[in-house]
This record gives sequence, structure tokens and C-alpha cells, in this order.
Amino acid sequence: MPRAVILLRGGLDSTTTAVIARSQGYELYALSIDYGQRHRIELRYAEQFARTLGVQAFKTLRIDLRAIGGSALTDDIAVPKERPLATMSEGIPVTYVPARNTILLSLALGYAETMEAFDLFIGANALDYSGYPDCRPEYLEAFQRMANLATQAAIEGRGHYRIHAPLLQWTKADIIREGVRLGIDYADTLSCYDPDEQGRACGRCDACQLRIKGFAEAGIPDPTKYQP
Amino acid sequence: MPRAVILLRGGLDSTTTAVIARSQGYELYALSIDYGQRHRIELRYAEQFARTLGVQAFKTLRIDLRAIGGSALTDDIAVPKERPLATMSEGIPVTYVPARNTILLSLALGYAETMEAFDLFIGANALDYSGYPDCRPEYLEAFQRMANLATQAAIEGRGHYRIHAPLLQWTKADIIREGVRLGIDYADTLSCYDPDEQGRACGRCDACQLRIKGFAEAGIPDPTKYQP
Repeated sequence: MPRAVILLRGGLDSTTTAVIARSQGYELYALSIDYGQRHRIELRYAEQFARTLGVQAFKTLRIDLRAIGGSALTDDIAVPKERPLATMSEGIPVTYVPARNTILLSLALGYAETMEAFDLFIGANALDYSGYPDCRPEYLEAFQRMANLATQAAIEGRGHYRIHAPLLQWTKADIIREGVRLGIDYADTLSCYDPDEQGRACGRCDACQLRIKGFAEAGIPDPTKYQP
Repeated sequence: MPRAVILLRGGLDSTTTAVIARSQGYELYALSIDYGQRHRIELRYAEQFARTLGVQAFKTLRIDLRAIGGSALTDDIAVPKERPLATMSEGIPVTYVPARNTILLSLALGYAETMEAFDLFIGANALDYSGYPDCRPEYLEAFQRMANLATQAAIEGRGHYRIHAPLLQWTKADIIREGVRLGIDYADTLSCYDPDEQGRACGRCDACQLRIKGFAEAGIPDPTKYQP
């Protein structure tokens, strides 16, 4: 079985991506990055999901991106709530983390090189996060090109790195339908930017709203645990 | 003054790069990455040098790359000593860290985006480290291209990222001559892969040997503090 590194967070997108990678025949090496998120509970979901899925290895890497600042997910800016869905895709959200996917993919690349894996999976999604520059195909292609110049394994011809973002053009409803078809219980995942201590979703942040809409559009009952 | 982010380690190359960036009129934001090196003393040198130079800000970011493994600098593989200079450039050294420059530049990019800096300086040097794939011009160009697709600041047209590696084609002697001309006291720097507790260099690892040779070729007395 070929090896793949999967960036796993514990939300809808990365868990579905992991299950897709598995369905394509990859042996999975999951990497979760704790980048100083306010809700580390996301990482507990990621680890539990990785165990349930039966990955080959699960690694957590801590990096305190608060040191370099710049986002509602890493600073103490309030997470916006109950924003109209129509305005979410306007401009770049305050939850944007500077160079986030570049940092995450770089770490995944380092892990992949160590493990002699050449396939990297990321749950990037361009439709629901149209404001994020690092969720676009041209960005991912540029990263892939760079990766194949960056590493000993590629230079020595032992393989060619490929960045897989299977959800890139999917709606949340598409993602949920495919995940359910592949057997995911989305009650085991967390998308919320502002969960409570018990890991229950707020139901009002951008991520929750997009997720709720996704389940509605997919015509699938939403199993998410919400705060009362 | 335009702002620049400089990846500062405390060795010969990054300190010289910092002084070159300063001489080109940049206001400097220094970023030191503690990636689980065995000798954190390197970071003390970096911070002290940054203070002496008078940078605008000095940030340290911890990331434990030992979690993803793969190198003498992060694992417990012995640092090679007294390797013949002629063999150093053969193949890729065991001190190679997977995707290191990609990870470091990604973090610098995140910091740069937060600070609205568009110039990133790195002390990459292709001659003395010919075995490192991520010290080659084609790699750095690919990274720069990717960076300009990755970030909000670039997408919104607020600037264009440039990766500067002024030492890329220089010999160690070139670097030392230019650094001395710009006023660096290299006694304040540390290149050694295996220093002692007092921060004194071993004199026998690859980095020490290249540095010793560089001072000899530059015809400049070597002020480095060596272990007795």
C-alpha cells in the first residue's frame, strides 16, 4: 500500500478527506497541528477519529502561531457569530491565519519525507472558503511544484510529491454525502470555531452555519452535538 | 523604511544576511525557530546578536520537529566529526532536516504577512551546502512564486513577496569578508553543530571545519571560541 500523509483536524473536511484517501488504497500517516488554537478540543476529535479509522500513525505537532499573530483563531479577537451566509464569502474572514496552509503543508512535507510518503492529503475547500487564498488550485499546484524542488527524496528520484485536495471544488453537501457513503459518523467530528468544554458546537459561527446548511442541503439529519 | 523578516539562527550565514539586509535599508523583524535542536544555545546567540544589531522585533517560535523525525540535528544520531572536507559536498548530509527551509520560510511568511513585510531574508548558501536541495536558486524561486499565491496580502495587491538569499553563491570566505566589512564580530556567532554548555564550538563537525577554512581563506583571524 502506498503511504500518504493526511493533515487531520477533526472537522468535516479533513475527516472526509482521510476517509477518501483510505478508500483510494493509501496507508495513512495522520498529522495534527496544534497551532495554538483556542479550542484544543479539536485535536481530541482528530485523535479519536484517527483511532477509529485505524491509521498507521498519528502525530501531533505543537507550534505556537500566536507568536507570529494575526487571526481570530490564534489571537483574542472574538469569533464572529450569526454572520449572514451571503456575506461570508466576501473578502477574507477574520479567522484567516497568515500562511496557514503553507505552514501546515510544509510540516506535512517534512513528515512525508521522513516516512517516504509522496502523497499529501489536505481538506482544503475552495467553495465554502472562497476568501482564503491558500485554498485555490493555483496555490496548491505552486506548493506541489516547490515541494518537488525542496526535498532530498524528490531530488534523488525516489518519488514525486503530489498534493491531494479532493474536496477543493465540493460543496459542504457534496462532502457530507460522500462521507456518509464512506461510513463516517459526523457526530465524531467537530467543525465549530467556538465549542464548549464538552466539545459541543456553538451553532452560530461561520463553520457551524456552513455545516448546518450542508446537512440540510444533503438531506441528511445533522448528528452534531450542539450547546443547549 | 521597508520591513523585512530575517530568519536568524546565530551562525555565520544568518547573522551576515541580517547585516546585509540592514545595510540595504530594511527595518528588521527577526524570527528564530527553535525546532528541537540539541543545542538551544544557538538561539541565545541569535537573540544576543539581534539585540546588538538593534532589530525592530525578535521573535522565537518553538516547533518540535523531533515529532516528525529524520535528522542528526533533531534525532539522536551522532553529529559526524572530522569528515574530510572534500567528501562533505557528496550527497546529502545526515544533518539534513526534512523540508527544513520550506518549514522555516513558511513560518517567516506567516510572520511577514502579519507585519506587512514583503521581503524575507534567509542565509541559505548553495556552495558550502551543495547537498541540500532547499538551498538552490530554483527551489527559492518556486517558494517565492508559491508565496505570492498563498497570502491575503499578495492577493489583495498590497505587495509582492521576495525571498532574498544574498549568500546563495558565496564561499564562506566571501561571507566572512563581507561580514567583517559591515562590522560583524564573529565571536558573537556560533556555527557549531555540537557546542558545549558554554557555547564553545567543537572545531571538528562539518560546520566548524567549513568555518575554520573560511577564515583561513579570507585571511582573517578566527575569533571563534573553541572547546579546549
